[in-house]
Amino acid sequence: MTLPTIAFDGDDTLWHNETLFAGTQQHLRDILAVHVPAETIDRTLLARERANLALFGYGVKGFTLSMIETAIEVSDATVTAAEIQRLIELGKAMLSSPVNPIDGVDAVVESLKRRGHRLMVITKGDLFDQESKVARSGLADLFDAVEIVSEKDEATYRAILDRHEIAPADFVMVGNSIRSDILPVLALGGHAIHVPYAITWAIEHADNTADLPPILKAGSIAEVPEMIAGL
Amino acid sequence: MTLPTIAFDGDDTLWHNETLFAGTQQHLRDILAVHVPAETIDRTLLARERANLALFGYGVKGFTLSMIETAIEVSDATVTAAEIQRLIELGKAMLSSPVNPIDGVDAVVESLKRRGHRLMVITKGDLFDQESKVARSGLADLFDAVEIVSEKDEATYRAILDRHEIAPADFVMVGNSIRSDILPVLALGGHAIHVPYAITWAIEHADNTADLPPILKAGSIAEVPEMIAGL
Repeated sequence: MTLPTIAFDGDDTLWHNETLFAGTQQHLRDILAVHVPAETIDRTLLARERANLALFGYGVKGFTLSMIETAIEVSDATVTAAEIQRLIELGKAMLSSPVNPIDGVDAVVESLKRRGHRLMVITKGDLFDQESKVARSGLADLFDAVEIVSEKDEATYRAILDRHEIAPADFVMVGNSIRSDILPVLALGGHAIHVPYAITWAIEHADNTADLPPILKAGSIAEVPEMIAGL
Repeated sequence: MTLPTIAFDGDDTLWHNETLFAGTQQHLRDILAVHVPAETIDRTLLARERANLALFGYGVKGFTLSMIETAIEVSDATVTAAEIQRLIELGKAMLSSPVNPIDGVDAVVESLKRRGHRLMVITKGDLFDQESKVARSGLADLFDAVEIVSEKDEATYRAILDRHEIAPADFVMVGNSIRSDILPVLALGGHAIHVPYAITWAIEHADNTADLPPILKAGSIAEVPEMIAGL
């Protein structure tokens, strides 16, 4: 086997992300607590996010717009302009929030680089925000390529592998989402290592979990180099 | 000279875009007309867009959030939730609006393709929205590569040329924005043809117009193939 190219997902694989969304969603619940219980807010927000995905794609700006729609809907349009401005400020705070690498990421990436692997980031979301996060993570110099994509499906991975002239057998994807990081890569004949994160966004849950192929799972990112050596 | 690669800007070069923003801005003025005159709305919106650019980048979702902030500001936070929902609907309408190619684009792109030029789109904005626009334009199959970027500066163009192994002397950029499509390419030693659009967004205006280098200017996109042949 050629020394494989290792690609890492960004959000919740290299750096914390869902905790930021969860914290913001708690603020949304607090702002709207006078109108409806938290469960209604969570359910409405998820429904809005799903409905808006085809127009907004992934990312903080679309999430902020979905929060505003949720506030208008659950308050029967009585939410105030000042409260809506607070939701926009929450979105802006997410976009300028420090990027916190997950424990152990630095050492893992550096050790793989020393072994001579070609290293990539493959992340989805808003182009501008993701570029900014890669830069703010302090990890950018360790990677040979950063690919920011709008959706992580088989066609996306195939296009990336073709463009970089990588055979699927020489490619390992490392990520926290079975739906976005693992299944499409396995379907192409590549390798994938699942590193679960504490929280998984409902929209990232894989359908049909009964039919999943066998999936290599790491307890933490620190286990990844040894698992790659053993492939 | 090697047969050059020709790259086209998307918004307002291949397809109409500013007209869509201008139409939406007129709706914003109508909704807020009870609060302040149109000039105040336009000035506040532009200030918000400028202030938000570093967090939101370019694109419709950020524009929609800036419209909401403008509505809250000029109404002294008296704008209603229902009016804000209308602004979000305007943003969604922009994202699903048909993509109208500019007159003559099809013939120009096909003629350059027949002559054997490698053809690209280099466009900036929201990744998801721009991918969708390229697809909806019906032009996607004519291009060898589509590059969606967060900013069009010298570094961006240099990275694209490097990645595609194109010498600047063998590269022609065609676009409507002197700031984004022309000046950075000329600075790299590439060629550029300016095809003005009826409206230029204030943020795209070039600074220091006194110091501009000589710029090749086409009256319409139909003149571009002959100008390229004469380079």
